[in-house]
Amino acid sequence: MSNKDIGYDTINLGHGSGGLMTRDLLDHIIFETFSNPYLDQKHDGSIIKVDGEMAISTDSFVVSPIFFKGGNIGELAVNGTVNDVAMCGANPKFLSLAFVVEEGLPMGDFIKIVKSIKETADRAGVQIITGDTKVVERGKGDKIFINTTGFGKVHPEAHISPYKIKAGDKIIISGPVAQHGMAIMSQRDGLEFESTIESDTTNLNFLVNDLLDGFGDKIHLFRDPTRGGLASVLSEIASDTELGISIKETEIPLDDQVAAACEILGLDPLFVANEGIFVTIVDAEVADAVLELMKKDKKGARAACIGEFTQEHPKKVVMHSVIGGKRMVTPMIGEQLPRIC
Amino acid sequence: MSNKDIGYDTINLGHGSGGLMTRDLLDHIIFETFSNPYLDQKHDGSIIKVDGEMAISTDSFVVSPIFFKGGNIGELAVNGTVNDVAMCGANPKFLSLAFVVEEGLPMGDFIKIVKSIKETADRAGVQIITGDTKVVERGKGDKIFINTTGFGKVHPEAHISPYKIKAGDKIIISGPVAQHGMAIMSQRDGLEFESTIESDTTNLNFLVNDLLDGFGDKIHLFRDPTRGGLASVLSEIASDTELGISIKETEIPLDDQVAAACEILGLDPLFVANEGIFVTIVDAEVADAVLELMKKDKKGARAACIGEFTQEHPKKVVMHSVIGGKRMVTPMIGEQLPRIC
Repeated sequence: MSNKDIGYDTINLGHGSGGLMTRDLLDHIIFETFSNPYLDQKHDGSIIKVDGEMAISTDSFVVSPIFFKGGNIGELAVNGTVNDVAMCGANPKFLSLAFVVEEGLPMGDFIKIVKSIKETADRAGVQIITGDTKVVERGKGDKIFINTTGFGKVHPEAHISPYKIKAGDKIIISGPVAQHGMAIMSQRDGLEFESTIESDTTNLNFLVNDLLDGFGDKIHLFRDPTRGGLASVLSEIASDTELGISIKETEIPLDDQVAAACEILGLDPLFVANEGIFVTIVDAEVADAVLELMKKDKKGARAACIGEFTQEHPKKVVMHSVIGGKRMVTPMIGEQLPRIC
Repeated sequence: MSNKDIGYDTINLGHGSGGLMTRDLLDHIIFETFSNPYLDQKHDGSIIKVDGEMAISTDSFVVSPIFFKGGNIGELAVNGTVNDVAMCGANPKFLSLAFVVEEGLPMGDFIKIVKSIKETADRAGVQIITGDTKVVERGKGDKIFINTTGFGKVHPEAHISPYKIKAGDKIIISGPVAQHGMAIMSQRDGLEFESTIESDTTNLNFLVNDLLDGFGDKIHLFRDPTRGGLASVLSEIASDTELGISIKETEIPLDDQVAAACEILGLDPLFVANEGIFVTIVDAEVADAVLELMKKDKKGARAACIGEFTQEHPKKVVMHSVIGGKRMVTPMIGEQLPRIC
């Protein structure tokens, strides 16, 4: 598959027309890359056989730049939705894939993104079963936006709900914070700085599945701290319960280089977006065993218990800081860094 | 629900941040409008119980202008995906809903679109069960793009497939062609012309369901001639079989005003997009009864049998023209009119 196969160096308005050019683009790039019995139906949609409880999640990805250290928009679009389905306690199996491409996107970039989507989907064990491609005029979009919607069967042992959380429950995070946001920021126009920080984008579904296999209904919640960062997610969870959250700053995994970059730019790493980590709220009695299991997996190697739920200060998140004080952790209000995912 | 409730006259980057402004927008506009037990889970996704064969279809909507005669982008985003699921022989029940909004969109326009989505979803009998909202900087989008992904159970009597088509099968269209495309075109910058042509956007799922109830596996295919128009869809169907298609120009329903507008602009109505009609391929023995049933429904009142499949000219579409000649109908090649849906 190359630019030559479809005779155009860039994406053209005609590629979104629904006519022959669209068909060429689909046949030579999309169908060739993702071929599977569902997509090969080539209908307006796809038919799957399912049975029981299914989780469904949708996300649009508008990250800028579209290629960044540690990943690209295609990789993000697969992992992001795979992880959202996993956070429901489900095993993602199918994805829909919809592009809104700006006229003039180099065909090579489009092909690179499509290939990356295929590789990322294979790694996560999901299939692309239906899709759509639209093209907008130059200046009416920003290179490429991608929507993915994911489906997967809920794990038979999953009982995921904020209502299950009780005082004493432990809060475990699977890895270091703020990597994705700082990787994007280091490459953002006008903000570029030298760093080797890479996005943490990855699929978390297998690790989530292992936890549900091992601990079933002792796992009370999964949540991935993407936009808005860890602070926004913890605030949201606290507000969904009648309990408070108490966390220790010293326990939150954070790379030195990421911490330094945040400090230089005056950013709070708790507000910075993540793509490859999750928070889980577990019954205290299994917390150590959960940590042990997570640390055996590369994606949870740096997992840490960062705090617990408490009867005190209901609906509020309080952080015990490095220097011994306490501070209230509030959700982010406006926009710290737009177009992060 | 009004602009005042959320304190902003326009959509801001902060509304896509994942922080407090996002939560405000969701709580006051999205959750309030669409409230249902699935969406109210307020999780990263939604959990539904299903059993059997499900059809899934996704579509992004980028139409310009976003408000047009006979509808708006929100209405289109619901009906378009509802119809794509219906075309699979399924009964759409659930939709995901993802916005990519350009900074500066008047809040009133956003609210108007959201309300219209709710009304259109109610009419079609579908629920919005999960969603996403992203905001891009001014000049990096075009007011609003919407992705919907739809799910529905396949009708127990449906056996929809191009492989079931045989010579003699009749081709029935549910209503007049080219209305949506010409309605958009009459309001497109630089092209405006006086007309009362309205988009035909509507949901077709109930009529499709009635046909499957009545005729089961005698219905061989449904397809909605949206982008690329009737010509592109018929060409595509023909190329998926080993048969030819023969149609009669005089039988294709077309409003005088639409025909006149096409003539003035030099457009072939067979290439112009539709949003509220479908083509069905049926066994010849039920064709009359299918037509009779369709005509009883307002959405099929002007249904017509426009032709049939034939052993001759395999994979080609031949039209018998008004003046008695024959011409080959080819799919559209490039883009006739961009941003139609």
